[in-house]
Amino acid sequence: MSSAVEQLKQHLGEIHDLSCASRVLGWDQQTYMPPGGARQRAQHRATLSRLIHSKFTSEETLRLLDAAEPETQSLPEEHDDRCLVRIVRRDYERSRKLPSDFVAAWTRDASLSNQVWREARRANDFPAFRPHLESMMDYARRAADYYGYEDHPYDALLDGYEPGLKTADVRRVLDVLHPAQVDLARAISQKEAPRADFLYREYPEGAQGEFGLAVAAEFGYDLQRGRLDVAPHPFETDFGRDDVRITTRYDCHYLPEAIFAIFHETGHALYEQNISPSLSRTPLDSGCSNVFHESQSRLWENLVSRSRSFWQRYFPRLRQLFPAALADVTADEFYRAVNRVQPSLIRVEADEVTYNLHIMLRFELEMGLIENQVGVADLPEVWAVKMREYLGVTPPDDRDGVMQDTHWSTGSLGYFPTYALGNVMGAQIYETALQADPGIAAQINQGRFDGLRGWLGENLYQHGRKFLPGELAVRVTGRPLDPQPYIAYLQHKFGELYGL
Amino acid sequence: MSSAVEQLKQHLGEIHDLSCASRVLGWDQQTYMPPGGARQRAQHRATLSRLIHSKFTSEETLRLLDAAEPETQSLPEEHDDRCLVRIVRRDYERSRKLPSDFVAAWTRDASLSNQVWREARRANDFPAFRPHLESMMDYARRAADYYGYEDHPYDALLDGYEPGLKTADVRRVLDVLHPAQVDLARAISQKEAPRADFLYREYPEGAQGEFGLAVAAEFGYDLQRGRLDVAPHPFETDFGRDDVRITTRYDCHYLPEAIFAIFHETGHALYEQNISPSLSRTPLDSGCSNVFHESQSRLWENLVSRSRSFWQRYFPRLRQLFPAALADVTADEFYRAVNRVQPSLIRVEADEVTYNLHIMLRFELEMGLIENQVGVADLPEVWAVKMREYLGVTPPDDRDGVMQDTHWSTGSLGYFPTYALGNVMGAQIYETALQADPGIAAQINQGRFDGLRGWLGENLYQHGRKFLPGELAVRVTGRPLDPQPYIAYLQHKFGELYGL
Repeated sequence: MSSAVEQLKQHLGEIHDLSCASRVLGWDQQTYMPPGGARQRAQHRATLSRLIHSKFTSEETLRLLDAAEPETQSLPEEHDDRCLVRIVRRDYERSRKLPSDFVAAWTRDASLSNQVWREARRANDFPAFRPHLESMMDYARRAADYYGYEDHPYDALLDGYEPGLKTADVRRVLDVLHPAQVDLARAISQKEAPRADFLYREYPEGAQGEFGLAVAAEFGYDLQRGRLDVAPHPFETDFGRDDVRITTRYDCHYLPEAIFAIFHETGHALYEQNISPSLSRTPLDSGCSNVFHESQSRLWENLVSRSRSFWQRYFPRLRQLFPAALADVTADEFYRAVNRVQPSLIRVEADEVTYNLHIMLRFELEMGLIENQVGVADLPEVWAVKMREYLGVTPPDDRDGVMQDTHWSTGSLGYFPTYALGNVMGAQIYETALQADPGIAAQINQGRFDGLRGWLGENLYQHGRKFLPGELAVRVTGRPLDPQPYIAYLQHKFGELYGL
Repeated sequence: MSSAVEQLKQHLGEIHDLSCASRVLGWDQQTYMPPGGARQRAQHRATLSRLIHSKFTSEETLRLLDAAEPETQSLPEEHDDRCLVRIVRRDYERSRKLPSDFVAAWTRDASLSNQVWREARRANDFPAFRPHLESMMDYARRAADYYGYEDHPYDALLDGYEPGLKTADVRRVLDVLHPAQVDLARAISQKEAPRADFLYREYPEGAQGEFGLAVAAEFGYDLQRGRLDVAPHPFETDFGRDDVRITTRYDCHYLPEAIFAIFHETGHALYEQNISPSLSRTPLDSGCSNVFHESQSRLWENLVSRSRSFWQRYFPRLRQLFPAALADVTADEFYRAVNRVQPSLIRVEADEVTYNLHIMLRFELEMGLIENQVGVADLPEVWAVKMREYLGVTPPDDRDGVMQDTHWSTGSLGYFPTYALGNVMGAQIYETALQADPGIAAQINQGRFDGLRGWLGENLYQHGRKFLPGELAVRVTGRPLDPQPYIAYLQHKFGELYGL
C-alpha cells in the first residue's frame, strides 16, 4: 500500500498500543489490583487517556487522514484501508469535540468512582457513592454538550456506543418489545413454575470454572489467546485479537451465575478473537458496536447455551462434576430451571422474558437524569418505585437495587439500551444463520459449534469495525434492526416451556 | 513551591505514569498473560518505551530543568526538590545518549526474547534461545557505545544499575570476597553436612504461600498495598508506593524455594512501600540503586530469615502447617538445614557462602561477552567449565545451566555484580542498625520487626533516589561499600554452624 496510508496506520498503531496498555490497567484494576493502588492507578489511566485523546485529536491525525483519503478512493468500498479512513474520520470528528483535559479528568474521576462503587456496593452504602455518581452524571451531561445534538442530549451519548443510533430509534424498538414482553411475562405468571431448588445447592467454585471454561473452549474460545479470571462484575476485554480475556463471579450456592456469565463473555471473546488479522493494530480491530457485541454475548449465552439441545448434550457432563447436587435432576428439568421466568432484582441474572424490562427501567431513569427530571439523591427511591411498576419486586437494599451495575459508576450513560437492542440483534442474526445453514441447530446437540462460529466469523466477526452498525445489520441479515425475530423466538420458546 | 519546579514535576509525573503503566504490562506478562499475547504485548511495551524515552529526553525536559534549577539552589542540600533537579539532570544526560528508536526496538525485542527464553528454558532448548540472546548482547554492546565510557564498555552498563559504579570497583570487592568465600566453602566441605532430607518432603503450595505471606505481613509488608502471585522467576515490581507486588515460584517437594523467595522479594517491597510519600509520582519514588535494593532483599531473606532467632520463633508455626513433613524435625535442625552449605547449580537457591561464586562466574562471562572474547554459541560450554572451576558441579542441562536466569534474555548486562555487592551492603547496613539499636536482634526472637523496619525506614527507605549510591552508603553507614562486615558475618555464622 502507498505511504500515506502506511503513515496513518503507524500513527494510529501507536495510539492503539496505548489504548491496549490502558485496557490492561483496567483489567488489572478489576481483577488483581490491591485496594491501596486505586488512587495512583486512576492517575496512571488519566495520563494515558489524555495522551491517547490528544494524539488522536491532533492536527497530525487530520493531516494524515487528508493525505490518505485520496489514495483510498479508488479502492473497493470494502477494502480495509478505505474503511479505515472513513471510520477513523468519523471517530476523529467526534473525539475532537472533547478537550483532552476533560477526558483525562473524567478518566481519573471515573476510575476512583468505580473503586468507591465497589466498596459502597459491598457495604450497601449509597450515600458514600452518591457524590461520585453526581460527578459522573455531570461529566456525562457535559460530554453531551461538547458533542452536540439535534434532538436530544441522549443522542450524543448513544452515538458513543452505537454510532448513528438515536433516542427515537431506541424508543421505537422498546415500544414494540414492551407490550410483547409484558404480555408474555403475565401469561407465564399464571402458570406453574418449574422446580429450581437444585440450582441453590452446593457447587464448588473450582468445578464451576472448569465446566464453564471447557464449554467455552468447545465454542471455539482459544485459551492460548485468552483466559478466565474473577471480577466483581463479569466483563470481556482485549488487548489485540491474541489476548482476549473474560471474567466471571462465583456463587457456590447458585450455579447459573458463574457459568452463564462465562458463556456470555465468551460470546464477546469469540467476536474479538476472530476479527481479521489484517485489521490488527488499527482502530478497526474491535467489534462493530455495543449492539453487535451484545448480540454475540447473548447469542452464545441464551440462544445456544439456554437451549434444550445444549443441555441434552452437556447436562450429563455437568452432573459428573456435581454428582451430589444434581443426583435427582434430569436434563429436561435442568433446561426448564435455567429458563424459568421470574421477575427478579438483578439484571444480569434475569431470564430472557423479563431482562429487557430491567433495561427499560434504566432507560427511563437515564432519560430522567439527563433531562434533570431525576436527581441522583432520588435514585434509590425512584428505582424502587419503577422496579415495582416494571417487575413487581421491591429491592431490599441499594446493593441489589440502584448500585447493582457498574456502568453509572464511570458515567456510562446511554450504554444500557444497547443491551436490549443486542438481544434483538442476536435473534435476528441467529435466524439468518439458521436460514443459511439449517444444520447449525442440530450440531449443538452434538457439541459442535464450528458451523455457527464459522458462519458468524465469515459474515460478522472478521469485519471488525469496518462498517457502521446500520450498514452491518443489512450486510449480515439483509435488513435493519427488527424486533420481530426476538419476539417470535421468545413466544415460541417460552410458549412451549410454559404450555401457553 | 515555585512554579518552575511544579511544572517540572508535572512533566515528570506524566512520564512516571507511563512508566508505571509499562511496569503493569511487565507484571502481567510474567504472571497471567496468555502465551498468544506475547507478540502484541512486545509492541505495546515498545511504544510505551519509545514515548517515555522521547518525552524524557526531549528539549522540554532540559528547558524545565534549567528553569527549575535556580529555584532550588537556595534550598538545603537534602530538600526533595533540590535532589530531584540534581538526580533528574544526571538521568537526563545519560538517557539522551540513546536514540528513542533504539530504546523502542530493544524493548520490543527484549520482550519477545524474554518470552522465547521462558519457553526455551522449559524445553531445555538453548539453540532456540541463542539468536535472541545474540541480539540482546548486541543491544547491550551498542548501548555501551551510545553511553560512552572512559575505561571499559562495561562501566557504561553498570552505571545504569548502580550510578557511579565502575568495573574496577566491582573487581576490587570481588577480589576480597573471592578468597574469603572459597576458603570458607573449602573448610565447610571437610565437615559433616547437617540433615536436610525433610526439606524435600511433600509441602502443599497453598500452605507455603500462606506461611510466607503471613510472615511477610509481620515484617511489615502492607497487603492493602501489595499482593503475591506466581511467576517463573520471582521478582518485585511497583506502580507507586501504594501498589508494590511480589511473586514467587513453588516446588511442593522443596520447601525453601518459595518461602525464601517471598522473604527476599518482601525485602524489596518494604523498601518501595516506605519511600516518602513526598516523592510520589517523581523519578525519585524508587529505591536508590540495585545494590541498595538487593541489600534489603538479602537482609530480610538471609540476615533476618535465615537466623537462628527467626526459626526459634517461626518453626513451631511452620510445623503446624506441615505436621507430617516436619514431625521429626527440631527448630535447630531446620535452621541448620536452610543454612547448609553445598555447592549447587542454581544461583537463587545457593547458600550464603557459595552465592557470590555464582555471581563471580557470571561477571567473568559478561566480561567475556562484552569484550567479544566469548561468543553466545560458546556459552553453554564455558558455563559448564566455569561451574566446575568455581563450584565443583556440572550442569546436567542448559535449563539449569546457562538459561537459569532471566537477565540476559532482556540484555541486562551489568546487573549481576550488583547482587554480590548487595549482599555486602546488606551486612554493612545491618551491622550499623544493630550498633544503633542493639535490641533489634532480640526482637526477631519475639516476632517483632518494627525496630528494624523503623530504623531502615528512617535511615534508608524514605530517601528513595534522592542521593547517589556512594553518598547514601556514607549517609546510612558512615562509610563507602566495605566487604569486611559481610565476611565477618559469614565467618561468624558459618563458623558456629560448622564448628570451624
